[in-house]
Amino acid sequence: MGAPARHFASDNSAGIHPEVLAAVAAANEGHALAYGADRWTESALGLFRAEFGEDSGTYLVYGGTGANVVGLGTLLQPWDAVLCAATAHINVDECGAPERFLGCKLLPLQTTDGKLRPEMIRDTVGVLGPDHQAHHVRPRVISISQSTEYGTVYRPDELRALSAVAREYGLLLHMDGARLGNAAAALDVPLRALTTDAGVDVLSFGGTKNGAMGAEAVVIFDRGRDESARFGRKQATQLPSKMRYVAAQFEALLRNGLWRRNAAHANRMARRLAEEAASVPGVAITQSVDANAVFARLPGDRIAPLQEKRFFYVWDAAGDEVRWMCSFDTTEQDVDDFVEEIRAVLA
Amino acid sequence: MGAPARHFASDNSAGIHPEVLAAVAAANEGHALAYGADRWTESALGLFRAEFGEDSGTYLVYGGTGANVVGLGTLLQPWDAVLCAATAHINVDECGAPERFLGCKLLPLQTTDGKLRPEMIRDTVGVLGPDHQAHHVRPRVISISQSTEYGTVYRPDELRALSAVAREYGLLLHMDGARLGNAAAALDVPLRALTTDAGVDVLSFGGTKNGAMGAEAVVIFDRGRDESARFGRKQATQLPSKMRYVAAQFEALLRNGLWRRNAAHANRMARRLAEEAASVPGVAITQSVDANAVFARLPGDRIAPLQEKRFFYVWDAAGDEVRWMCSFDTTEQDVDDFVEEIRAVLA
Amino acid sequence: MGAPARHFASDNSAGIHPEVLAAVAAANEGHALAYGADRWTESALGLFRAEFGEDSGTYLVYGGTGANVVGLGTLLQPWDAVLCAATAHINVDECGAPERFLGCKLLPLQTTDGKLRPEMIRDTVGVLGPDHQAHHVRPRVISISQSTEYGTVYRPDELRALSAVAREYGLLLHMDGARLGNAAAALDVPLRALTTDAGVDVLSFGGTKNGAMGAEAVVIFDRGRDESARFGRKQATQLPSKMRYVAAQFEALLRNGLWRRNAAHANRMARRLAEEAASVPGVAITQSVDANAVFARLPGDRIAPLQEKRFFYVWDAAGDEVRWMCSFDTTEQDVDDFVEEIRAVLA
Amino acid sequence: MGAPARHFASDNSAGIHPEVLAAVAAANEGHALAYGADRWTESALGLFRAEFGEDSGTYLVYGGTGANVVGLGTLLQPWDAVLCAATAHINVDECGAPERFLGCKLLPLQTTDGKLRPEMIRDTVGVLGPDHQAHHVRPRVISISQSTEYGTVYRPDELRALSAVAREYGLLLHMDGARLGNAAAALDVPLRALTTDAGVDVLSFGGTKNGAMGAEAVVIFDRGRDESARFGRKQATQLPSKMRYVAAQFEALLRNGLWRRNAAHANRMARRLAEEAASVPGVAITQSVDANAVFARLPGDRIAPLQEKRFFYVWDAAGDEVRWMCSFDTTEQDVDDFVEEIRAVLA
Repeated sequence: MGAPARHFASDNSAGIHPEVLAAVAAANEGHALAYGADRWTESALGLFRAEFGEDSGTYLVYGGTGANVVGLGTLLQPWDAVLCAATAHINVDECGAPERFLGCKLLPLQTTDGKLRPEMIRDTVGVLGPDHQAHHVRPRVISISQSTEYGTVYRPDELRALSAVAREYGLLLHMDGARLGNAAAALDVPLRALTTDAGVDVLSFGGTKNGAMGAEAVVIFDRGRDESARFGRKQATQLPSKMRYVAAQFEALLRNGLWRRNAAHANRMARRLAEEAASVPGVAITQSVDANAVFARLPGDRIAPLQEKRFFYVWDAAGDEVRWMCSFDTTEQDVDDFVEEIRAVLA
Repeated sequence: MGAPARHFASDNSAGIHPEVLAAVAAANEGHALAYGADRWTESALGLFRAEFGEDSGTYLVYGGTGANVVGLGTLLQPWDAVLCAATAHINVDECGAPERFLGCKLLPLQTTDGKLRPEMIRDTVGVLGPDHQAHHVRPRVISISQSTEYGTVYRPDELRALSAVAREYGLLLHMDGARLGNAAAALDVPLRALTTDAGVDVLSFGGTKNGAMGAEAVVIFDRGRDESARFGRKQATQLPSKMRYVAAQFEALLRNGLWRRNAAHANRMARRLAEEAASVPGVAITQSVDANAVFARLPGDRIAPLQEKRFFYVWDAAGDEVRWMCSFDTTEQDVDDFVEEIRAVLA
Repeated sequence: MGAPARHFASDNSAGIHPEVLAAVAAANEGHALAYGADRWTESALGLFRAEFGEDSGTYLVYGGTGANVVGLGTLLQPWDAVLCAATAHINVDECGAPERFLGCKLLPLQTTDGKLRPEMIRDTVGVLGPDHQAHHVRPRVISISQSTEYGTVYRPDELRALSAVAREYGLLLHMDGARLGNAAAALDVPLRALTTDAGVDVLSFGGTKNGAMGAEAVVIFDRGRDESARFGRKQATQLPSKMRYVAAQFEALLRNGLWRRNAAHANRMARRLAEEAASVPGVAITQSVDANAVFARLPGDRIAPLQEKRFFYVWDAAGDEVRWMCSFDTTEQDVDDFVEEIRAVLA
Repeated sequence: MGAPARHFASDNSAGIHPEVLAAVAAANEGHALAYGADRWTESALGLFRAEFGEDSGTYLVYGGTGANVVGLGTLLQPWDAVLCAATAHINVDECGAPERFLGCKLLPLQTTDGKLRPEMIRDTVGVLGPDHQAHHVRPRVISISQSTEYGTVYRPDELRALSAVAREYGLLLHMDGARLGNAAAALDVPLRALTTDAGVDVLSFGGTKNGAMGAEAVVIFDRGRDESARFGRKQATQLPSKMRYVAAQFEALLRNGLWRRNAAHANRMARRLAEEAASVPGVAITQSVDANAVFARLPGDRIAPLQEKRFFYVWDAAGDEVRWMCSFDTTEQDVDDFVEEIRAVLA
């Protein structure tokens, strides 16, 4: 509240892309049976299959936490544990919804850049040994965010290495792809290169931060998980009744590559911001700007004055690392103006 | 799929009312902080307070099952039980989401018309006695649907009688108001006459079936429940990130009484349908048509042919009672055409 | 408290059979690894395999509610429902532990004698049809009590008929055998005739009401359920550390047929009590006395005075049906004295 | 299995103290109402009040994980988190039972000796700030083990400092006192000095590792938690039916200070073992031997040969730190023989 028209708080501060809104309006025609038995949903699911393969199955949901909970639920028994980065959205930002709904434990691993690596998995799972007892939870899922909460991106080879170590230890690979579009745009690869072809077992695919109003999806790559996705979505209160409007949003994003244009633009704005801000004395960019997030360290006492110009979030406990997010509607002017504000406040 | 443009399957088959869609489009302006820290949400919450009293608190959510789960969660410990009609949406149509998320037992009561009555509560709770043991769950909440799943409506005096018996036995009153607007329009009373002033403790208020795209709300009447509503909404995966678009839908419905016009129209169409259909030989209207639902008994072998004309649902196990729902966009022509179809199929 | 030395309140009012206590004392020798890696457990599990077949697997637990929760957990996904008699212990006397721990819904069916019958299953499951939607929970388990909470017993042919209807509808059969010994003694058949050979999928086998101090077991008949039994037992807080003492109790009950002698005696005392009490004017025996429970109707105002002589429980809401339980240590003198007390109080 | 008569694997490898077994046998007299309505339970609860204060309330349970789950449940809402040492039994050894049953997240903190300290709490909770959002779980409970899983002991002043920081941040203090007796014996203080008088809110008090067969207790210090303890115990499947035998065990331990004699002896044996083993070349004692556990580092390749002499557990992932536990029945001869075996194997 009181924030200026466009800021850098989050990509979910952005509005709806006009093409998405137009698709919603176009779907507002006559009656359609609820819960997905409509032609817009049929069409959207076809586009998902085109992206992720004919053997994939997609379940549309309202929100990102819902997608993660439903998706993880297709992979886990209650005594299974999820290996994830300590910074993962599922660990930090979902108020313990995975634990509450699934009953499962998360095993957070420390990283410097939000990315899990095979050796972290080996170090954690390896010590439990083959004769695993019922006293301990059973590591079962590796959950990664693509792009990560630190704005970094897993390359296809890194993903394949993770899925290989998963197979080696009898684990499954979950991807929180709330910003998968940004990762695919950054690497200039199709979505399936980072998912279907990289050994991902279940994907949360995000539309909301990419220009939708509110549209997320659970994508499974083994139709044996259909039952738990179908019932789990309903039990998780994530089955939209007027499904056609969620479907229409994805139709708009997926039909002509709008998702990629949106993501690529946001990424470009982040790089511009990072490059320009790095030239301001007192600003240190702290993470690789792979996608649409910029992490920077500022003099601690300059943060609050700068937030008053345009709102953004402080990221670390120590209080001097901040996150600036760009979105599909961030303009070059926004970036340039903000850098001027940074320069002025830090002067 | 393949259903005609407008049918009588459900009020969630209808689309978005044009004023609601316009409000969503109007909210698509600039950046807004996520999760409700925006001016549209502020405004919508003010309209809720105007309807339900300054002491009420409202939590916007995505869907109806979510609203019920979050709302019930503010009233229950895991060892508490919910008394509800056997036909209640929470008992039949939410795939056990209340049990899974809250851990609580539902105690379904048989009714003929979907309505609970004080003597049913007394008969059930009374026998457990004052020295209640930990072997049994503790009846704690009476949950009613307004209007009910049978299209019947509780009058204010009936509601006050239920809240009185609730107080007598130390129970709380939850209302699933997915169609509260239809009830209020039917009785021509303000929303608060059926909620705030009738002793309701927590309300699920539905926008979706009343012309919204997807907008529901949890309304609490004791701000001591704020904490559990706030955290419970997030844990139930029902906290929308781009909240402004949910808020805008309610703004449109509540600002100038659109909710009442929509509901009154749907109710009027249901009465028209019931009156006309009742004149068709072989059709028997089985429930009081208080709101926007018509229940009727038809010759069993005529149902499938009629469904092919316009889809609707069979309601009972025996297979000859059907439900016809009217919505804000049902026209007199739709009704009249459908009655002709009924007449033709039953001839 | 204040109850006389032996009463008819429940078979868990009885103490420990001397042979069971002696077995516990005999196991108190040196150190033994915890959680079942000891020779007493090894031996007891062998006796379970001898009773239930070499393909069965047994998990020893502390208590009966625990056994039910762990056993049901091997059969259910969270969206599955359990069909059971409305009077079932899991439905009435476990404080909703199944719902809380498993997240599942129970679907209680009305019976007159505590016994489910195939037509009740057909009537309930049949109407849901093959194209079952995610809106409703999925019936998955039939849970029966043997003997029932009304002291009645399923014959082997009745059990086979239930397991046949289970297979027909894709359901599984769970038996709460807290008093399975009483049923097997009543029918003079081996335990396996009522379980392994009758198509039971998972069994809770009770020792406590049969003369143990506190010893129950989950028996599975498909070793594919081992994982969920093993982890589920630990998560349900039902893995005893000093397991040898639970094992020793079962060793004593199973080694030389002590369980059958105890159960047969209790059954005999119940028949004696029923026969003698039936001759008292004003007493009506209300259920078939198949096992160790007697249900009777008495003049309502005579119940409290009689309870002061020897405690027992009133069973129905109306307040004039009572339950008298016999146990392994009930004597003929106890029965005869109690009948005299009944006669005197009702005179 | 195959382990020698007495080893150093765990204090739950020990048997039942003869006085405890005698008490169980003495309670085996006539009938007693189930679930605690018996004179042995009444007596034991009186002894608990004598130890922990007249305002305390005690709930007897079967096992330690059960006690922790029930006790924590009286303190937590599902969105609350528990701060604990990463090595805590609730975090590592309970198979995620707290997460599954309570739905809550644990926030494990790294320690060197198993003990939490006020600054760790401040560092973790302090950064969340006063305007805590629903995105994150809410730190609510500090859970400590006394003695810790590393055999270290909190002094009364350390406990008071923790309860002070708890009050400062609106947190509650839970103590896993599976080995509280060892701590109190080590410090030569009454139980209440480490609990009631130190600001503990809820205690798990262990009998099993102190010479009982299987007897644990949840002690609450605010009777406002009675309801959740009572219902939570039943729902957690931790309400013993033949309660008198659990009560009798505690009666034996508490009546004449048997618990203290047992604990003091085990502690003495641990000190003896540590002192003697420290003189063996190649052995390094790694933790302060405050109670009945000895942690030591050995040459990695000598561990397996030594385990073949007398079993014990390897404690760390690296594979060269081991734990030796002493119990009430460990003899000086056991210790001396074991040290000779160590000496021989390491020679």
